Amino acid sequence: MAAVKDGADRYALGVDFGGTTIKLGLVNGNGEVLERRKIDTATASTPATWLDAVDRGIDGLARVAGLGRTDLAGMGVGVPGFIEFERGFLHTLPNVPGWDNVPFVQMAEERFGLRVFADNDVNVMALGECMFGAGRLYRHAVFLTLGTGVGGALLLDGKLYRGAYSLAGEIGHMSIDMNGVESSAGRGSLEAYIGNRRLVERAAAALQAGTASSLSERTTGDGGDLTVKMIAEEAARGDRLSIEIFDFAARCLATALASLTYVLQPQAFIVGGGVSRSGEVLFGPLRKHLAERLNPVFLERVEVRRAKLGNNAGIVGAACLALTT
Amino acid sequence: MAAVKDGADRYALGVDFGGTTIKLGLVNGNGEVLERRKIDTATASTPATWLDAVDRGIDGLARVAGLGRTDLAGMGVGVPGFIEFERGFLHTLPNVPGWDNVPFVQMAEERFGLRVFADNDVNVMALGECMFGAGRLYRHAVFLTLGTGVGGALLLDGKLYRGAYSLAGEIGHMSIDMNGVESSAGRGSLEAYIGNRRLVERAAAALQAGTASSLSERTTGDGGDLTVKMIAEEAARGDRLSIEIFDFAARCLATALASLTYVLQPQAFIVGGGVSRSGEVLFGPLRKHLAERLNPVFLERVEVRRAKLGNNAGIVGAACLALTT
Repeated sequence: MAAVKDGADRYALGVDFGGTTIKLGLVNGNGEVLERRKIDTATASTPATWLDAVDRGIDGLARVAGLGRTDLAGMGVGVPGFIEFERGFLHTLPNVPGWDNVPFVQMAEERFGLRVFADNDVNVMALGECMFGAGRLYRHAVFLTLGTGVGGALLLDGKLYRGAYSLAGEIGHMSIDMNGVESSAGRGSLEAYIGNRRLVERAAAALQAGTASSLSERTTGDGGDLTVKMIAEEAARGDRLSIEIFDFAARCLATALASLTYVLQPQAFIVGGGVSRSGEVLFGPLRKHLAERLNPVFLERVEVRRAKLGNNAGIVGAACLALTT
Repeated sequence: MAAVKDGADRYALGVDFGGTTIKLGLVNGNGEVLERRKIDTATASTPATWLDAVDRGIDGLARVAGLGRTDLAGMGVGVPGFIEFERGFLHTLPNVPGWDNVPFVQMAEERFGLRVFADNDVNVMALGECMFGAGRLYRHAVFLTLGTGVGGALLLDGKLYRGAYSLAGEIGHMSIDMNGVESSAGRGSLEAYIGNRRLVERAAAALQAGTASSLSERTTGDGGDLTVKMIAEEAARGDRLSIEIFDFAARCLATALASLTYVLQPQAFIVGGGVSRSGEVLFGPLRKHLAERLNPVFLERVEVRRAKLGNNAGIVGAACLALTT
């Protein structure tokens, strides 16, 4: 990675613009979050109200730290949608209406009087992880977030690789079965098998089919109210169905990671997001299935690691956009 | 691509080290092959005999052109195996025994008194295509060769991307079916479905099962002596089985290309190698299946093109290694 220009005496704002919460943080050049604020996205969901709320947030953060805006290297923003990094142009946010075709960076720079950088949320998390988290040691790494969907970002030759039009990294759309489940992204998309709702549906279907499982004690209905966290807990306690569900998820994921290894030969996969918190019930079978699917020459040269920054990843990564540029 | 430093008054040697033939060419900075030589690989298959034969070839080429070795920008070599580009270290050539763990570039530089660069044959072809062929217009492209195997190379941000340890680009090992055919590369490898022997086997199996096809007139036995070229010819004449075989190959290939588009978002796929000479019987269904498998936002931003350099690709691409460095 490009080195951060200073350390503890350099500051940037990181904004993690999520569908539920907007998190703001004042971050120093060592990746430490010095101050933070939260804004309910529902109260600041249009461009005008967003700018007002974030502007107040910046004032609050800077005041507590005794800094003026000119003391800041700038602001980075991670947005939950499709933004062209170079132009700072926001095409759309799938889960927040009213943000179609917004010249986001220009608008924010004019309002805040700061240099502003913006990228999609997965790229931003990847940047944070590779500067201050599990990716620090690597020049070539693939980042994944496993949650409702499956997101990805590529660190190639020490830089985020965004493809020809800022859309690269959609690992969740990779096909793991040419004849598989149909979706708007094609056939057999990884996300259509291991998105967290898909894993819950798989558990619910097995319960409804009469499979004996301790999961039946965790649901008040037909299994639709289960969570991946519950399945992980029951898997850790030895429940056979829960173990099978994670084994299936790991097998799907290993198929995609093996393909990515053959194509990109990264040094590591860094896996974050809600489903990754399941821990060894996921990572154990993932490593096993990857070993079955990779030629030893490739297998010996790639690692699988959990993301480290957790809830801070969005803020720290966003600040990195400003700290490294 | 990095610009070639000069044009017609700059020269380099390109060596296409194939399993059957070693081709040498004197190439100028416009990508024109001015002179060429062929050596039967069987007569020059060990490092010592290879150096002798290529050394004589260099003398012959330079003499005809009225050039001395000091007039040459250097030599590039494409090798049919695993070589680390940075170190110039050759690990192994699967089809030419006696080349394990050879410090190839150092050996060649000492013998020839030239700057020498070496890379695997697919990277070299990709370099030629992106400097002087179908890839000239692109900064982000994926190259494929379809033949006995399926090879690949990645042009990212105007440079060949080789991954962490020079092994990237193995598109033939991507899985298109997580439960598919087993091989040393895992399960469901693209190559296990569309390598040219696999396509011939598919035709032969259908003939043996009694499928009516004009291919039966092209075989003297059970179909094992068919070639992909014959299948392409019969497909072009409307033979239903032959058309189905190409449709199947196109569907397999489209699955991998869609995944690559989601992950890398190249501007183009450049497809070369023997099977690509089948022309529209392959490219027509390939474009159709890709359109079915890609979200329109991605589909509209990617092209599929045939490689242009044909038999010259190896020589020209190898010379590019020296001309661009």
